[in-house]
Amino acid sequence: MATTSALTHRAFRLVSRPQGALKDTDLKLCVEPRPVREAGQLLMRNLYLSIDPTHRIWMSDKPQYMPCVELGDIMRSASIAVVEESDDPVSYAVGDHYVCFGGCCEYFVGIPGANVLYKADGVAGLLPVTAELSLCSLIIGLTAWHGVNKILCPDSKSVVCVSGAAGAVGSLVGQLAKLKGATVIGIAGGEEKCNWLKKDLSFDHVVDYKAAPGGNVEQALASIVSDVGPITHYFDNVGGATSDAVLLHMALNSKYALCGSISEYDDNWSGQKNFNMILMRRICVQGFICTDHVDELNQVRTELAQLASEGKIQYKEDIREGLENYPSTLRLLMTGSNTGKLILKV
Amino acid sequence: MATTSALTHRAFRLVSRPQGALKDTDLKLCVEPRPVREAGQLLMRNLYLSIDPTHRIWMSDKPQYMPCVELGDIMRSASIAVVEESDDPVSYAVGDHYVCFGGCCEYFVGIPGANVLYKADGVAGLLPVTAELSLCSLIIGLTAWHGVNKILCPDSKSVVCVSGAAGAVGSLVGQLAKLKGATVIGIAGGEEKCNWLKKDLSFDHVVDYKAAPGGNVEQALASIVSDVGPITHYFDNVGGATSDAVLLHMALNSKYALCGSISEYDDNWSGQKNFNMILMRRICVQGFICTDHVDELNQVRTELAQLASEGKIQYKEDIREGLENYPSTLRLLMTGSNTGKLILKV
Repeated sequence: MATTSALTHRAFRLVSRPQGALKDTDLKLCVEPRPVREAGQLLMRNLYLSIDPTHRIWMSDKPQYMPCVELGDIMRSASIAVVEESDDPVSYAVGDHYVCFGGCCEYFVGIPGANVLYKADGVAGLLPVTAELSLCSLIIGLTAWHGVNKILCPDSKSVVCVSGAAGAVGSLVGQLAKLKGATVIGIAGGEEKCNWLKKDLSFDHVVDYKAAPGGNVEQALASIVSDVGPITHYFDNVGGATSDAVLLHMALNSKYALCGSISEYDDNWSGQKNFNMILMRRICVQGFICTDHVDELNQVRTELAQLASEGKIQYKEDIREGLENYPSTLRLLMTGSNTGKLILKV
Repeated sequence: MATTSALTHRAFRLVSRPQGALKDTDLKLCVEPRPVREAGQLLMRNLYLSIDPTHRIWMSDKPQYMPCVELGDIMRSASIAVVEESDDPVSYAVGDHYVCFGGCCEYFVGIPGANVLYKADGVAGLLPVTAELSLCSLIIGLTAWHGVNKILCPDSKSVVCVSGAAGAVGSLVGQLAKLKGATVIGIAGGEEKCNWLKKDLSFDHVVDYKAAPGGNVEQALASIVSDVGPITHYFDNVGGATSDAVLLHMALNSKYALCGSISEYDDNWSGQKNFNMILMRRICVQGFICTDHVDELNQVRTELAQLASEGKIQYKEDIREGLENYPSTLRLLMTGSNTGKLILKV
């Protein structure tokens, strides 16, 4: 394993664009000189990396919502980092924690407002600091909150379906919809995840897409909607065959919030074969990305921290260790092998 | 050929669900007793049938926006029909023309408000009676008008793209968008259609999808948008590969009105492989069907008749003759072999 001296650090650089599943050789763990800050800049040390499905998109050169990571560059990642050097001890004190786009590395030069975003205080101390990545974050909390409260807007008569339901975003979506009084259907993979959704999070119905391959999701949904009525609101994290099954069971004039399609990111860009259901059921599909809605972040962080501290919502963290394990940790996410928000402790 | 006596009439009944392209044997031209009206009902004789892509959907048993046509039933069709018998000569005088859902047959029992919709007066005499099917109609005029004015809402800064641009709906969409000052890109098949759009209808750009197969639409659009900017509004009549190409060139926060997907109706349900662009570009896709918006029909008929009579919009009709030619006439539509609104004179 690469090791660092006091003047070096470790950084994962993207060296080839993955074809299909990410290979270890698509990234290179480099030991290189620790970056040097200029006056007014910060020296930051990463503590926790946020491991998110969007990493796989950033590695590709498909059209996407941010510039892709260039070959040779340090892999992009949100993180919690600590200030190591600062010229401004009032605003940025050494030892303080910040939510950053720090990248997959140990040290980086921090520029407030650019890659150093805001103080990671567990939202005024209500929660542990890692909740800044797992719940009260741009990528998780704002995404779920915006999709539920600004796009779908379910109420007590709604039947809300969420794919990737046991993921960090999906599990929050279902809980926020439950707080609105909606009937919630979660689609997840595996008995453990499904039990968690049903027993701990009080989802009304769960579909285990891994339980019986081949039309299973569609049949399971058919059975559920015959009971609770067709799906009026769909929050999609998964795409592909799962969403094709959902489309067949959506209600007239229903809403579809398109947040992600993790089943496709390893170059399975199959799209939606049942796209025509959007016409037949007069569905409104809205694609959205959290980075467009940062103006809502403060409100969302406060609201979610409050709800979690009062026990009204739950969140799970799956914290792995060692920067050197970044590739294998990201693969866990792509195969649905994690439970809760995946975080890598540097 | 089947012939009729004074007491019989001819009617096309659906006898098998087409697999792929419609075959003559999927329909049966029956000579059968002329239907007999009861008191209060009308006896109607069809003059013109409206031949529309949606006929192919109605023939299938896929999930759809109306009940499918049952096997053994007379094929559904909008039509202009004349009153032959009536008990109410004030409201429904013998000899008057009505827009109906008359079906693919010669005679039918008319029930006002059910299958007899409203008087076909060429919208107060401004236009020939066939304009009631080709322009000022539920299926054509309302569809185009609603998509442009209620869903897309383009303005002078918009880049509007329409697929199936030389069709009855598509050509109207482009002209309505031009009236709003938008830059209009039409996608159509064949030189003659493209010339009509460009020279007669003043479309700003046309893409001939038949001109060079294999990526041609995507490349042609790439060249156009490098000039006029990305597509801010898309009106889709075609689906499939055409719309996948369009999706790659849509703007951030753009709108997609999903009206139809004729390329798929002959059982090519490929859907949209580039569905993920809805996420990447934060597109809003709205499926819609004219039958949901009949409350707008009177306004639309008046407005379109006025525009056409003033020469501000143009429309084409392709009138074929003979009920017995219904299957081959519908096939013309599915292969894009017609020019303008396809009508079958009974």
